[in-house]
Amino acid sequence: DSLEPVDVELLEKALTIIVLGASGDLAKKKTFPALFSLHVSGLLPSHTAIYGFARSDLTDDDYKSRISEYFKGGDDNDKEEFLSRCFYVKGNSYDDRESFKKLHSILAERESKGGNRIFYMAIPPSVFIASGKCVKAKCMSKTGWNRVVVEKPFGTDLESSIALGKSFAKLFTENQLYRIDHYLGKEMVQNLLVLRFANEVFEPVWNRHHIANVQIIFKEPFGTQGRGGYFDSSGIIRDVFQNHLLQVLSLVAMEPPVSLASEDVRDEKAKLLRAIPPITLEDIVVGQYGPSCDGSQPGYLDDDGVPDDSITPTYACAVLHVNNSRWEGTPFFVKCGKALNERKMEIRIQFKRPANNLFLGPDLNPNELVVRVQPEEAVYLKMTTKKPGLTGDTSYVKLDLTYTTSFGTGDGSLKLPDAYERLILDVTRGDHNLFVRNDELDAAWAIVTPILHQLEEQKVQPVIYPYGSRSPTAADDLMVSYGFVPTPVCQSLLGHCE
Amino acid sequence: DSLEPVDVELLEKALTIIVLGASGDLAKKKTFPALFSLHVSGLLPSHTAIYGFARSDLTDDDYKSRISEYFKGGDDNDKEEFLSRCFYVKGNSYDDRESFKKLHSILAERESKGGNRIFYMAIPPSVFIASGKCVKAKCMSKTGWNRVVVEKPFGTDLESSIALGKSFAKLFTENQLYRIDHYLGKEMVQNLLVLRFANEVFEPVWNRHHIANVQIIFKEPFGTQGRGGYFDSSGIIRDVFQNHLLQVLSLVAMEPPVSLASEDVRDEKAKLLRAIPPITLEDIVVGQYGPSCDGSQPGYLDDDGVPDDSITPTYACAVLHVNNSRWEGTPFFVKCGKALNERKMEIRIQFKRPANNLFLGPDLNPNELVVRVQPEEAVYLKMTTKKPGLTGDTSYVKLDLTYTTSFGTGDGSLKLPDAYERLILDVTRGDHNLFVRNDELDAAWAIVTPILHQLEEQKVQPVIYPYGSRSPTAADDLMVSYGFVPTPVCQSLLGHCE
Amino acid sequence: DSLEPVDVELLEKALTIIVLGASGDLAKKKTFPALFSLHVSGLLPSHTAIYGFARSDLTDDDYKSRISEYFKGGDDNDKEEFLSRCFYVKGNSYDDRESFKKLHSILAERESKGGNRIFYMAIPPSVFIASGKCVKAKCMSKTGWNRVVVEKPFGTDLESSIALGKSFAKLFTENQLYRIDHYLGKEMVQNLLVLRFANEVFEPVWNRHHIANVQIIFKEPFGTQGRGGYFDSSGIIRDVFQNHLLQVLSLVAMEPPVSLASEDVRDEKAKLLRAIPPITLEDIVVGQYGPSCDGSQPGYLDDDGVPDDSITPTYACAVLHVNNSRWEGTPFFVKCGKALNERKMEIRIQFKRPANNLFLGPDLNPNELVVRVQPEEAVYLKMTTKKPGLTGDTSYVKLDLTYTTSFGTGDGSLKLPDAYERLILDVTRGDHNLFVRNDELDAAWAIVTPILHQLEEQKVQPVIYPYGSRSPTAADDLMVSYGFVPTPVCQSLLGHCE
Amino acid sequence: DSLEPVDVELLEKALTIIVLGASGDLAKKKTFPALFSLHVSGLLPSHTAIYGFARSDLTDDDYKSRISEYFKGGDDNDKEEFLSRCFYVKGNSYDDRESFKKLHSILAERESKGGNRIFYMAIPPSVFIASGKCVKAKCMSKTGWNRVVVEKPFGTDLESSIALGKSFAKLFTENQLYRIDHYLGKEMVQNLLVLRFANEVFEPVWNRHHIANVQIIFKEPFGTQGRGGYFDSSGIIRDVFQNHLLQVLSLVAMEPPVSLASEDVRDEKAKLLRAIPPITLEDIVVGQYGPSCDGSQPGYLDDDGVPDDSITPTYACAVLHVNNSRWEGTPFFVKCGKALNERKMEIRIQFKRPANNLFLGPDLNPNELVVRVQPEEAVYLKMTTKKPGLTGDTSYVKLDLTYTTSFGTGDGSLKLPDAYERLILDVTRGDHNLFVRNDELDAAWAIVTPILHQLEEQKVQPVIYPYGSRSPTAADDLMVSYGFVPTPVCQSLLGHCE
Repeated sequence: DSLEPVDVELLEKALTIIVLGASGDLAKKKTFPALFSLHVSGLLPSHTAIYGFARSDLTDDDYKSRISEYFKGGDDNDKEEFLSRCFYVKGNSYDDRESFKKLHSILAERESKGGNRIFYMAIPPSVFIASGKCVKAKCMSKTGWNRVVVEKPFGTDLESSIALGKSFAKLFTENQLYRIDHYLGKEMVQNLLVLRFANEVFEPVWNRHHIANVQIIFKEPFGTQGRGGYFDSSGIIRDVFQNHLLQVLSLVAMEPPVSLASEDVRDEKAKLLRAIPPITLEDIVVGQYGPSCDGSQPGYLDDDGVPDDSITPTYACAVLHVNNSRWEGTPFFVKCGKALNERKMEIRIQFKRPANNLFLGPDLNPNELVVRVQPEEAVYLKMTTKKPGLTGDTSYVKLDLTYTTSFGTGDGSLKLPDAYERLILDVTRGDHNLFVRNDELDAAWAIVTPILHQLEEQKVQPVIYPYGSRSPTAADDLMVSYGFVPTPVCQSLLGHCE
Repeated sequence: DSLEPVDVELLEKALTIIVLGASGDLAKKKTFPALFSLHVSGLLPSHTAIYGFARSDLTDDDYKSRISEYFKGGDDNDKEEFLSRCFYVKGNSYDDRESFKKLHSILAERESKGGNRIFYMAIPPSVFIASGKCVKAKCMSKTGWNRVVVEKPFGTDLESSIALGKSFAKLFTENQLYRIDHYLGKEMVQNLLVLRFANEVFEPVWNRHHIANVQIIFKEPFGTQGRGGYFDSSGIIRDVFQNHLLQVLSLVAMEPPVSLASEDVRDEKAKLLRAIPPITLEDIVVGQYGPSCDGSQPGYLDDDGVPDDSITPTYACAVLHVNNSRWEGTPFFVKCGKALNERKMEIRIQFKRPANNLFLGPDLNPNELVVRVQPEEAVYLKMTTKKPGLTGDTSYVKLDLTYTTSFGTGDGSLKLPDAYERLILDVTRGDHNLFVRNDELDAAWAIVTPILHQLEEQKVQPVIYPYGSRSPTAADDLMVSYGFVPTPVCQSLLGHCE
Repeated sequence: DSLEPVDVELLEKALTIIVLGASGDLAKKKTFPALFSLHVSGLLPSHTAIYGFARSDLTDDDYKSRISEYFKGGDDNDKEEFLSRCFYVKGNSYDDRESFKKLHSILAERESKGGNRIFYMAIPPSVFIASGKCVKAKCMSKTGWNRVVVEKPFGTDLESSIALGKSFAKLFTENQLYRIDHYLGKEMVQNLLVLRFANEVFEPVWNRHHIANVQIIFKEPFGTQGRGGYFDSSGIIRDVFQNHLLQVLSLVAMEPPVSLASEDVRDEKAKLLRAIPPITLEDIVVGQYGPSCDGSQPGYLDDDGVPDDSITPTYACAVLHVNNSRWEGTPFFVKCGKALNERKMEIRIQFKRPANNLFLGPDLNPNELVVRVQPEEAVYLKMTTKKPGLTGDTSYVKLDLTYTTSFGTGDGSLKLPDAYERLILDVTRGDHNLFVRNDELDAAWAIVTPILHQLEEQKVQPVIYPYGSRSPTAADDLMVSYGFVPTPVCQSLLGHCE
Repeated sequence: DSLEPVDVELLEKALTIIVLGASGDLAKKKTFPALFSLHVSGLLPSHTAIYGFARSDLTDDDYKSRISEYFKGGDDNDKEEFLSRCFYVKGNSYDDRESFKKLHSILAERESKGGNRIFYMAIPPSVFIASGKCVKAKCMSKTGWNRVVVEKPFGTDLESSIALGKSFAKLFTENQLYRIDHYLGKEMVQNLLVLRFANEVFEPVWNRHHIANVQIIFKEPFGTQGRGGYFDSSGIIRDVFQNHLLQVLSLVAMEPPVSLASEDVRDEKAKLLRAIPPITLEDIVVGQYGPSCDGSQPGYLDDDGVPDDSITPTYACAVLHVNNSRWEGTPFFVKCGKALNERKMEIRIQFKRPANNLFLGPDLNPNELVVRVQPEEAVYLKMTTKKPGLTGDTSYVKLDLTYTTSFGTGDGSLKLPDAYERLILDVTRGDHNLFVRNDELDAAWAIVTPILHQLEEQKVQPVIYPYGSRSPTAADDLMVSYGFVPTPVCQSLLGHCE
């Protein structure tokens, strides 16, 4: 069974998962529900204990009721069992060595046969390093391994990312660190490598000779919703583009790795990102949403906490160039935005038109391979067939693999594990594959940092688009200038919208 | 509209379709129903008259009732209107010049503004030439074009095919002749060129580097059913293999034509067939069905009219080699048989496995592109994706385009035109694309003639397989010896059997 | 031995070669010297007789001295022997049936065991048909085969070519006709198919993905030299472009044939030519030479017989597009001219630059494969290597196969057979490979006829270039507009000029 | 100018090259002559001093006369100038800290503006680490950079290599270490990346679809010549195969790097080596030379110091498999041996035969691209052309780029820098490109270590081949079993032996 722990130590020693920031939102909404699901699936070793650590003064009941708020699945029994393995330790602050020393003593008691520890840092970036220093100084297991899970943001530009990386490197080895980009845990993102490397039909056409362009698209149908103050200091490029979308792009475009082992895959991703030169001003459109056309939804500047003269982009569409022999000349369009017309994360591989159109009438539609990451996971290939009947007309249709239908339970639903479930499971098993390595991070920042600085220094005004619209026209124009061809919606196999 | 007549003359002059052998089975089951459907669809020019010619003594009523027996679609009005354009002329025999002279006078009366004539030879091959001579001598229109539609068989081996070809050539130009192979009129066969040449994704992998083998499969679930006497003199290789299956193979494997014009496409088909050397004894398995396992169905030798020591094959599986730079080394498996487990005509393109298996566990399944010609027309691509869930396991699934679903009316049915409809329409429009040219015919005979003679001269005993079985094991062995890999049935998108 | 006659009849029956127009220039300079060389090489069957036929009144001595004027090689013995097989027959005119009847009687006498006849039409096109009619009516061998060799011009545009073709078709089968384009007999032109199809390294890069452009170049260093009157009615496009250069282009660009048999190769050549749309005015530069810069050489208009206002091109550079899946997007530059700076016929395949330049400094030079047809036959590949020494600099050099060196006798010379020798030998052996088929001819005319008519009807003025110059700048500009990159002269392996 | 120092510090500070083992053979024959040549070429910074360090008691004169024994080029002036920059320091031993402390004081005196130091370890591997510790502890420059040059052997198997690597890692960073494999400094080895990545014609065919096999060949025409005692403990696999030949193989087969920067190239080389599984006993032939056929040359066992029952291989031919998508199925033959018939180091890329042989007669010869590293550096492509003349026969010839001719001075000679010159220059410039990284080393050892152990543990007897023979037949058989086809010697362009 491919789920067996790769790490034999895991079974012999006590495992403790320490959630720093246990009383926060991230822990409540993501970390604990994922741990609970793993428990329900029987994927947490039986000798696992989960210690929450935070500054709040919480009773045991308060704590357990708080962390179980977002649990999904399981029954009462599961819940009871799980919570019986959860404990709470109050600390004075995230940089208080004594608190960590105390935590260590508590943990050590359980670890008579040795203990492995996972430190899950569900805390603000401002205390990453201070907290890490305390862990390093006072709370490391000497009788097993120690692993540290960190969440983004990892810096705000190349310089700060390098600085953060160096600080971490003084505390932990790269091998101990697990940087989460939860998009890597998503089903269809993980599917990318299978689609590419387990199918002979795709690899031969996966290059500049046959692919006209690649689109990585992220759309959210809501704005900042009152959290504009926080968002304003980062903007969409730091929030989504530099991490999630460049990670996905690297999986789409990278060379085949020597093996699927973590370091081999991460070598290739880093190599791919390093082949992309920084984005230039000519190759980007930035936007900011205004009020919706009907006035029912506020614009970004209307959000409390957003300065009136903010030029922070809530939308970006950039053209990336991959300077290697596979991709030279094939543009990669990376698009992301808030307050658009739908929720969608999609990868679209648009092929070139056949070299020589033998068919009467207008240009043929290009083939397009679409991998929809969310919602309604799907893979489909848009292609041209003969239109049934007595004419020689062609029809543009979909070869379809919709997940809910193919793998579903029959009622149209499909239970896919949450990204966090997968990621935490991998931490327990010591698999780095879905975590971001330091050099990938730097390579991704190197792509966006110059344009971030230019936008800020030159005070480039974003184009304003209405809340709920499809995308700024300027973005379409940019893509068309690179030969992009919008393809028609296909006659669908199953009636769901494309 | 792509259905507009390509031949402007068609609209100006009277059109007469003369069905020779109008009282026979072929005319009743195929020719007249197709003509009726074209009438219902409004695709027969309004000044079309249909003259049946045969030796039977039939009243007008008898005749009309006979030819309308297999009509489909349309309403009473359509039927009445159509039959009002149908006439019957009795001849003394198919080689009686006087009868044809009389027919000519009758036709000439209608053709005051000039007339075009289609002679549809629904008659036995033994009278093809005699009848053609009469038509040529006495019945050709001088005021419009003349076209002659012929049905198989076109000879019984290369020598007789060449002789027949020469006889025809003395009577009609190649351009006047329309040799029907009704498989070319089938929807999915016509779709082959669209799939190949209107989609950039397929052409780059459509060659020996990426395709492991191609399978052309024809299965019938019934035996000779009392007509064994007729069948015994031909056998499955002449009946199905040499014509239908080699025609389909040539469309699958040919090079891109200069254009889709008839002669360009037929040039490429002929070129492809000429690159195939004759089949050798090592590369073929022939079979003959015995009684079914449960004894409920008779064996071939039980059929009346079949000699007790007949070695006529009712099944054949051969490996064909295409000696050109696209296909060298890729075997083409052509399989056909009667009295098998199902009714199916299918083209399967089996790709190679990815060069380097990065995935754990056993060998990956190869991709397979399947074009199902009948029943339930479909195109699907069998491929490997990640199995949803927390493991890294892969799953072998279908990217599916099932015609009834995609193009259907919602009730699961899909009205596709009958092959004959399409073919007759093309004759009226002067389009030779779906008809077999003389040199194609010879090239196809050149492939099978030596093995036909060897089987007969060496009295090769066919392997006996039970009525209703899947196929003789010897055929599987032959394929496996050429590297064939049976692929598992895919988890289906829509639940229909693969 | 691959030189053995393919045609066994050849050895059994008498062979007579009848040279119509035996007293003319072509016969003297090309036909007879080639026949003599074949005799010296022992490649004429021993029972061959050569009958000259013309209107001149010539003594036997006059005749033999005339036809032997341009003999090369052999010794006195060879010459004596050869001339003893040569005879002269005077005719009244090329359309006088009686004269041909007389010729027939003379020939028939020799042919006791049957006789094969080759009619070599070294006569003006104006009498092709009249003469052919006489041959057909009065002079065909009934006891062996008859073959007819024709020299260009084959019409002056598509219409006249079709008309000529039809006239010939009434007299002779396509199989009896041998249309000479003597460029097909040149060593390096014949080498094209070997280079392409006997070497695995070239075919995979021989397409639009890797080839930036193809150049077919023909340059003559002299003008019309007093024959301008004749030239003015045709011009360079009819004289060189439509025949020689398009023939060469078709060999460079065609698909692999089923076999190297004549009809297979000619099928592919015709197919290729048919994929080329007519040249447009935007895609051509026409020129006419003026006096040389130093005034020592006259301009075209100075030639006697050239009208003062002639706009006949003596130079043309056109861009051809090949609409098929191999070549879509790769321009073919066809350039030819008189009174240029050198004598040269060359094919240059310019590859694309590597997709991703890893090397410092300016753009890399593209690879170029050069096939020099004349003079100094050679094949070389211009490529980039490391410049020897301590830097990482690159150097652009030649991988060279110069014929005189590789195959030479050591004194720097190489005896290659004249094109005519090869072609006449092939006629005796019934090999059509190096002769132009009727449909090729029409396809080639279809490419140039519209532009010929446009140039004439719109009175397009050619650009004037000085006698002895390299080429009109406008031609360079046209090529550059299609992405052409001039490559530097390579450091040569053997010191000869590139 | 591409030779400008990449390291600006180089010009500002004093540079000292410390040659440890200055009195040894390596220093005398390689290190000092290379330094002298760099001096003559003006490529040593003017403020460079060279300090020899060894245990011998040498006068200044003795020392200078010793190190200048093998100088080439330059004049008396050059020599005098160079020697004036050379100094000698005697140490007690290579692990005597005091000696290194003294050396440091001497060096420090010169380095008023700061100093950079290169430690060139021309000493036995047994004292690498001890010596390195002394350098680290007592002799590092604090005012500039320190670089350490090490020569092979780097361990004797994977385990010892890893151990050595760890020891070095404790003393120096990977960036400070320069591991010499002097084959990487050879002109044609450096040329490999230019040939592959600066020419569009090669990359598309550089893979398993088109390349039948790759041969890396190393031959020496002499035996151990009295040094058998030393050689016997290593054998040809450790001596030549694991280092030189695998390094060359990695350059031939690796993927294109992101850039030509050292780490990018070394990433790709390491990646390639890691895709090669360990050699198995089935895939190797080992040999040992016996006396020459004429008895004039002794066998390996005759060498003093070689045990009578030694099974140490002096020859090996192994088949390597590269498990990635470029090379799966293409065997790499690595062959090396002593006491063979010639001196040669060659890379041969044998292409597949064209898929479909259109030419009469026997199989076509495959194309072969040959890169001859030594002697007489050359690149040539063996290919098939038409044999000039009247037949259609083909000829197998060379497209040739012989260095002495192309780049020579006219007298047939070509001055190429010695590998050491290039390598030492690169150390001064801080360029790691031509040096072996730690992970490459381990990857190479991982390929050969299991087979080394198997040969030793199973006491596999090498096949005996006569001194001066071409190669053991068993090696030819092994290659043929993998489809190898010996190609005939080509008609040579320039007469030199192939």
